[in-house]
Amino acid sequence: MAPQHAQSLRFRLPPLLFFLQTGFIVVFIFYVKIEQNVQTKQHAFNNYYLEFQDVHVMVILGFGFLATFLVRYSFSGAGFTLLVAAMAVQWAVILNGVESMYHRGKICINMRSLVVAEMCTASSLIAIGAVLGKTNPVHLLLIALLEISGFVLNGWLLQTFLKVPFLNTIMLLHIFGAFFGLMLSWVLYRQGSEQQHEKEKIDRKTGLFSVMGTLFLWMFWPSFNSVLVEVDHLDRGRSLRAVYSTYLALAVSAVTAAGFSVLTSPQGKLNLFHIQRCTLAGGVAIGVAMSAVHLPWVAMAIGFAAALISTLGSRYIKPLMLFAFECHDTCGVLSVHGLPGILGWMVQLLLQIADSDDLTTAVRFAVFHICTLLITLSLSMSLGLITGFLLKCNFWRPTQNKKCFDDQAFWEFPHQAGKR
Amino acid sequence: MAPQHAQSLRFRLPPLLFFLQTGFIVVFIFYVKIEQNVQTKQHAFNNYYLEFQDVHVMVILGFGFLATFLVRYSFSGAGFTLLVAAMAVQWAVILNGVESMYHRGKICINMRSLVVAEMCTASSLIAIGAVLGKTNPVHLLLIALLEISGFVLNGWLLQTFLKVPFLNTIMLLHIFGAFFGLMLSWVLYRQGSEQQHEKEKIDRKTGLFSVMGTLFLWMFWPSFNSVLVEVDHLDRGRSLRAVYSTYLALAVSAVTAAGFSVLTSPQGKLNLFHIQRCTLAGGVAIGVAMSAVHLPWVAMAIGFAAALISTLGSRYIKPLMLFAFECHDTCGVLSVHGLPGILGWMVQLLLQIADSDDLTTAVRFAVFHICTLLITLSLSMSLGLITGFLLKCNFWRPTQNKKCFDDQAFWEFPHQAGKR
Amino acid sequence: MAPQHAQSLRFRLPPLLFFLQTGFIVVFIFYVKIEQNVQTKQHAFNNYYLEFQDVHVMVILGFGFLATFLVRYSFSGAGFTLLVAAMAVQWAVILNGVESMYHRGKICINMRSLVVAEMCTASSLIAIGAVLGKTNPVHLLLIALLEISGFVLNGWLLQTFLKVPFLNTIMLLHIFGAFFGLMLSWVLYRQGSEQQHEKEKIDRKTGLFSVMGTLFLWMFWPSFNSVLVEVDHLDRGRSLRAVYSTYLALAVSAVTAAGFSVLTSPQGKLNLFHIQRCTLAGGVAIGVAMSAVHLPWVAMAIGFAAALISTLGSRYIKPLMLFAFECHDTCGVLSVHGLPGILGWMVQLLLQIADSDDLTTAVRFAVFHICTLLITLSLSMSLGLITGFLLKCNFWRPTQNKKCFDDQAFWEFPHQAGKR
Repeated sequence: MAPQHAQSLRFRLPPLLFFLQTGFIVVFIFYVKIEQNVQTKQHAFNNYYLEFQDVHVMVILGFGFLATFLVRYSFSGAGFTLLVAAMAVQWAVILNGVESMYHRGKICINMRSLVVAEMCTASSLIAIGAVLGKTNPVHLLLIALLEISGFVLNGWLLQTFLKVPFLNTIMLLHIFGAFFGLMLSWVLYRQGSEQQHEKEKIDRKTGLFSVMGTLFLWMFWPSFNSVLVEVDHLDRGRSLRAVYSTYLALAVSAVTAAGFSVLTSPQGKLNLFHIQRCTLAGGVAIGVAMSAVHLPWVAMAIGFAAALISTLGSRYIKPLMLFAFECHDTCGVLSVHGLPGILGWMVQLLLQIADSDDLTTAVRFAVFHICTLLITLSLSMSLGLITGFLLKCNFWRPTQNKKCFDDQAFWEFPHQAGKR
Repeated sequence: MAPQHAQSLRFRLPPLLFFLQTGFIVVFIFYVKIEQNVQTKQHAFNNYYLEFQDVHVMVILGFGFLATFLVRYSFSGAGFTLLVAAMAVQWAVILNGVESMYHRGKICINMRSLVVAEMCTASSLIAIGAVLGKTNPVHLLLIALLEISGFVLNGWLLQTFLKVPFLNTIMLLHIFGAFFGLMLSWVLYRQGSEQQHEKEKIDRKTGLFSVMGTLFLWMFWPSFNSVLVEVDHLDRGRSLRAVYSTYLALAVSAVTAAGFSVLTSPQGKLNLFHIQRCTLAGGVAIGVAMSAVHLPWVAMAIGFAAALISTLGSRYIKPLMLFAFECHDTCGVLSVHGLPGILGWMVQLLLQIADSDDLTTAVRFAVFHICTLLITLSLSMSLGLITGFLLKCNFWRPTQNKKCFDDQAFWEFPHQAGKR
Repeated sequence: MAPQHAQSLRFRLPPLLFFLQTGFIVVFIFYVKIEQNVQTKQHAFNNYYLEFQDVHVMVILGFGFLATFLVRYSFSGAGFTLLVAAMAVQWAVILNGVESMYHRGKICINMRSLVVAEMCTASSLIAIGAVLGKTNPVHLLLIALLEISGFVLNGWLLQTFLKVPFLNTIMLLHIFGAFFGLMLSWVLYRQGSEQQHEKEKIDRKTGLFSVMGTLFLWMFWPSFNSVLVEVDHLDRGRSLRAVYSTYLALAVSAVTAAGFSVLTSPQGKLNLFHIQRCTLAGGVAIGVAMSAVHLPWVAMAIGFAAALISTLGSRYIKPLMLFAFECHDTCGVLSVHGLPGILGWMVQLLLQIADSDDLTTAVRFAVFHICTLLITLSLSMSLGLITGFLLKCNFWRPTQNKKCFDDQAFWEFPHQAGKR
């Protein structure tokens, strides 16, 4: 049934999976234990578990189904996301616990560590969005593990040397993931990608699955932005403010994305891609800026600006990146996560400066804040480059051009044998 | 690609969106703030946020995907629901806060105000269900904003003049939305709609998306009916009773709808439309009657009667409305929300009278209860008529007949260009 | 439209539904009341309601959409699951309350009773999975009611005579459901089923709906395993341990299933069936073994072993069952629920023996534990046989061979009339 030269995963994927999985289990044997003293925090747990599940739904179902939009690549979109996420959370739990392991000899699993692990996984799924359909699952796993390592390292650097609060470093996941993915897609650029690949198209039905993923992300984003606020600050007021801000920013973002989508369309119509992705830009931007946003209208203005940037970016910058910089960004992560993330960073800078009492504090904050972005960008882009070159090695066997964006390369379709 | 005479949204939708959105942001700048003193209510918040999210899922995902059932209109069903809901919640927050703004100068955003706003939005989405596929998004936005204004006004009238409890007024959302939508569909009736429109049909795949919407509504309806009980009464017992009653009513409703669907079918088969919609009738009826239902079997009997009315209504009244009254009700909102809502109202009347100690109380309640329904019906129907005539103005450019029920009129399908 | 000899449900399904539903309402009138004294347990409720809803989502949406994978049977998969579940929860509430009715004269409805009812329903849906597509809804209802009766009886026997903790008996639902279904499919075996039925195939789109069902099951399984731990033990620590264990077991399970799926594939590709089902094996096994699992790596090892057994079972044992034992197991419940359940049972035995202080305790536990399995297996298999022979009676009219796996037999498709 399959053509003789079809790329078999057998000698690459299972050994890698079993090697990594066995390694993770061994690490868990020696270093990981479940936190015991939860009795006193009983109340807090409920919120965590509730909001942890919302984040879990966003990562597994939201990102998973958002990636199903390619007409012939929908199984891979959802299936590989599950596979990568299942591996990545284990790796993220270990990496995030390295410091605790160093000091106390053990890594504790609790709700907070799982939430943080899911957020690191979200970061890697953003990076993967840029190369979706042009890589095989072996590549995706390596990308995810390297991206998470870089992201955790970045957070550690920022916390240790710049004293950036943990919450602020974790919210850089959008920027880190997007620029990592962008560099990756630049290195992995294929000749001939200027033309639309024949299989890189959407369909009514897979488009609708992707809309479903969007809606899950859109609905649960308030939990995504607020969960760590409460865990770390035990301040319900701040956590609620994050919920309301995110909610309003997303509402405005959806309205604005629809408006600009029609306005920039030659036919005066809505673009599905904008509705699927740019509606989420408000959540990205407010997530990064959150700690400085105190008023509801500021959140709404951020949502407006983020959707504007994101829609214009998808319409005009994405083709530009392709032609000018040879960067084929399948899911448009630059416009959806990168630019709104940087917008959020800028808004946070401006609001913090406006809130400062004296000039010294303002300047000090500005310097630290700019360094934060520069370190994040340079680390993510350089790691993206390194990962890209690593994957270009022939050892991993790149996907053939004609097999791009196609489930047939990776999935058995025995039951369809008689049909097509 | 698009035919030359295709109706462009460019000169209508974006200006309206930006005008309204800017206006909302301006109102938020001057009048809206986030409630601060939440520390003491910490416990209560958890329930609210949890149940708020269930309501949020119902409104965005449930109603959104319920509206995807038309084979060529599924993107519009889900996408326009998101757009309308994102706009409507902001408008509902403002309108519901007008009284507080008048007295205290500020509108407070808290979990309760968001839940109420989502319920008003649900009301407008019910109204939109009646004209789905025969209108463009500009119409839908205007309908939603006018419907919410009417619904909030109705609630204010009933609370002020008839001293109806707030919870009872909000649960009239089904009746208000359904009759508003019905009048609208009567005014917007098109010649030739007696015959089934060629594109007004369902499909295996879009039907399944719609079933998914149904299931989300079905699963989370207990939260929908119980959330405001607890917020307003701080009585966990009453709130739990609402959960159990709704759960049982929905279970019986699903069984009964299936039974009557087969019984009234000429071929003795299940009708997908009944399974998608009439299974929900129990939740509508119990929602309206809730405050008077104390025993589980009463809830079950209400679920049975509601599904019976709803199934028979879909089978026999819907075609009758079309031929006799020239009322083309795309989603059958009369049978799904209107009639079960009135059934719930009647059950509430009977149960309250049976519970009354003396005749005076019973008569007084009956008079007030009947006035409640009459005011709601007359306000919703007259506003529906007015909205309908407003939309008939040529200024808004009605959708051409042949563009009805078709995503092509509103969505770019660039990637399908090479395909079809 | 329908062929003259098409099997009409009219004279079988509605009478059965109305008879049972009326009967249930009558029982509820006399024996069921809503629990009142919930004030003191206010805190506990939140968790229950939250986790109850997760279980509810798993049963209705998870199992429902998992059953949509057959290309022409997706409406029936989702619709019949809803119908059966709506009926089954009422029956399970009544059956689980029989003891309380005997002692106190009343059955109390509370969150715990609903959770237990949903779990019994899950057990019956597993049994139904084995005969999906080869039965009509009348059969399915009878199977569900008989299966639940047997399962509740089994739990009562184990608790009464072997003093097995309630939690352990309820977690046998996977084993009970799987072997019940297996026997059923053996009795209902049709001649000619050795060849793949022409309609028993998957499709890109229905496959994706099924993946969605999988993801909902996968995401909410930690709640499924932990909810009753907390309700019964009021021990947040134990409940959290169940959450973490299940989470880790599922993550490893997903990775391992993907690995073995590729490894055992002749083409070196992923098999959708394995990704849809075997990823869940870890949740099944850990659910059964839970009370004895204290360390995270043990949970991970169980996840690994469960996915291994499940993948190999789907690949090699499923065809063997078909040819050697004439057992056509549509959803592969033996590999997905049966074998991982028995693995969990064995792990629990080994861990408990290893944890025992002296030999006497160990032996006593082993004897009781082995009796538990033997009773469960013999009761489930004998009841499965009896149910199967009952359904073979001509009275219920078996589905014709050519109508198997086809929605057309049960659903009106009026709108498609003009199309195909």
